[in-house]
Amino acid sequence: MRIDSVDLFYLRMPQVLDIGDGSQDMLLVRAEADGNVGWGECEASPLTSIASFVAPLSHSACHPVAASVLGQRLDHADDIARISAEVRAASLDLLQTDHTLSGIEIALWDLLGRVREQPVWQLLGHRRSFPKTPYASSLFGDDPQETLEKAAAVRRAGYRAAKFGWGPYGTTSVQGDADQVHAAREGLGEDGVLLVDAGTVFGEDVDAAALRLPALEQADVGWLEEPFTSGALRSYRSLAARSATVRLAAGEGAHNPSLAEHLIDHGGIGFVQIDTGRIGGIGPAARVARHARAAGVAFVNHTFTSHLALSAALQPYAGAQADRLCEYPVEAKPLARDATTTRIEVDADGTVAAPDAPGLGLEPDLEALRGYLVDVEITVGGNTLYRTPELRP
Amino acid sequence: MRIDSVDLFYLRMPQVLDIGDGSQDMLLVRAEADGNVGWGECEASPLTSIASFVAPLSHSACHPVAASVLGQRLDHADDIARISAEVRAASLDLLQTDHTLSGIEIALWDLLGRVREQPVWQLLGHRRSFPKTPYASSLFGDDPQETLEKAAAVRRAGYRAAKFGWGPYGTTSVQGDADQVHAAREGLGEDGVLLVDAGTVFGEDVDAAALRLPALEQADVGWLEEPFTSGALRSYRSLAARSATVRLAAGEGAHNPSLAEHLIDHGGIGFVQIDTGRIGGIGPAARVARHARAAGVAFVNHTFTSHLALSAALQPYAGAQADRLCEYPVEAKPLARDATTTRIEVDADGTVAAPDAPGLGLEPDLEALRGYLVDVEITVGGNTLYRTPELRP
Repeated sequence: MRIDSVDLFYLRMPQVLDIGDGSQDMLLVRAEADGNVGWGECEASPLTSIASFVAPLSHSACHPVAASVLGQRLDHADDIARISAEVRAASLDLLQTDHTLSGIEIALWDLLGRVREQPVWQLLGHRRSFPKTPYASSLFGDDPQETLEKAAAVRRAGYRAAKFGWGPYGTTSVQGDADQVHAAREGLGEDGVLLVDAGTVFGEDVDAAALRLPALEQADVGWLEEPFTSGALRSYRSLAARSATVRLAAGEGAHNPSLAEHLIDHGGIGFVQIDTGRIGGIGPAARVARHARAAGVAFVNHTFTSHLALSAALQPYAGAQADRLCEYPVEAKPLARDATTTRIEVDADGTVAAPDAPGLGLEPDLEALRGYLVDVEITVGGNTLYRTPELRP
Repeated sequence: MRIDSVDLFYLRMPQVLDIGDGSQDMLLVRAEADGNVGWGECEASPLTSIASFVAPLSHSACHPVAASVLGQRLDHADDIARISAEVRAASLDLLQTDHTLSGIEIALWDLLGRVREQPVWQLLGHRRSFPKTPYASSLFGDDPQETLEKAAAVRRAGYRAAKFGWGPYGTTSVQGDADQVHAAREGLGEDGVLLVDAGTVFGEDVDAAALRLPALEQADVGWLEEPFTSGALRSYRSLAARSATVRLAAGEGAHNPSLAEHLIDHGGIGFVQIDTGRIGGIGPAARVARHARAAGVAFVNHTFTSHLALSAALQPYAGAQADRLCEYPVEAKPLARDATTTRIEVDADGTVAAPDAPGLGLEPDLEALRGYLVDVEITVGGNTLYRTPELRP
């Protein structure tokens, strides 16, 4: 097959709020080759990624992303890796590239899987799609009482694991954070897996983060996620050495496999969290999953948007039985919920799995999505480089 | 002062060629506070950075870059660091942010220096601006004979150091690369400092790069630059261990200080090369210079564009006498040459230095630049978010 077109669609809620909820907008990718179609999603600023796709050539290492994708051969999984390598080389000095590539790469896997009538995880060489324990991913409440009620609701909904993050955590006081964590534990019950996401709030400040460890240990928290910005390897390593029971989790910001591997090799993390919509797609995420396994680090997805993104996030470690957890968005906005005609539901055993169906195993709900479509037009030197295309099957 | 406006200008040559010459376009930044103006330059895809500056809010960690700059107080150097930290936090998940921030940060330093009537290097705490030995930065010729002639011309022009890179290097054969390197040495003469830039051509392949070491050693090459992609720390460390005399240089791709520090801490490099137009500006570059000095690694700028960018690149290590080299673009396009009314010229001693004048010490040549200005318009949901502003003093 030959890649004939790649279309990018900016979708968003009627109102986008200044809260830590990444499901308020979406950059959807449609790829077509010889009449076959695949879909993907970037976890990225939609307008900025659209600009990177069409940006005029700056020099030989700063091409628009489109230049290395359109017209390429797509017959085997290896073609996706080759195209991705060409994109990264030809757009090396265009920083947004990795985010834009991610959704395109995912769409190519979906397309290839649909044509081959195989799930993406089979194309990756996995023998089966093992069930994962979804953890409900929520924002901390504005106060401990709200967090307690949220955690109790998560428990009532049947989840065995829950993560709370962002909101006021790290912005008030050590005692305030302790109250939040204990409230989450109280609401979730003693037997639930409790995880905490600090949302990089401590920058590189190891002491500030270390002051939170006693409460996290008392509340039997499974991991402390992103205490620091993702590049602060020294801070991660120092805090890991000071923590008795709480393991560190990080990696969602990694926009290429190397960055995630540095956290494993030099940061002392116990869990690596990969967003396939940022790291360059499913292939790079699968590479990190292999590296993590060899290093004794657990792999887990990072997903806060649609089930199209969730399916893409599950594929890279679908066959890894030991990697049991799965981030499962429970507070997503209607846009994310409406994005697909079916969703990856929690089954009677309380688990989820990458679909046993061709490609990503989900269909975008185009009729619903058209209601969220944003008109974008970009003109440079009198030439219209981008105008929102028709959202067609 | 209060930052009243930040304007971004996309400038480019009438024709942009698919060659490794980053001086073919430019993203110029004008910042104004209480009637005072400063100028900076991003080393970035202009359209993509403009989009990141105005992109609609996606969520609390994905704001447009403009949101954290406009209206801010700017009275002291610390304000620049504070504003930069706010930009990186509020636009954490917008990958292009660091490139866009770079030019803005530089413009703020220029503005503050002009108001204080002090060079930026003084604001950074340096006591004087030490002379640096400029190395002429050129592309390899298409064949060894062309490279020999280019190197001889560089020598005749009075340069004591030269770097050749990109072009065919690493794309033909080990012998072909050796011929290129020996031709450069022959043209430059025995006493010149010869540096080689592989332009990440070997990916992560240590063996392929190691095959080039004997010729580099025979030609007494001072450094081998970017044999690998910038995140390939293991490859860097392995090659450094296999190299007897040739030290490794890297860092130009670093879009935050941590990435450069990882190359120093874990990559075994001997030279760290920082582009202030990518790493977040002058403050982050100065941080890397301090880290490098403590680790026994030499700091050197990366600059391939205008002398406005060159001045910004010299400021962070102006006071470091031991860091002697300076990348000095000699093949820049007319756009880069015309960008400023004066330039940082090589003096009678064959050295260059950060100007002893307020701010960056250079004035943009607005009349000349207007001839290169590109009209851009970005419309989202019926609202025009960006239209090329007037290029005014």
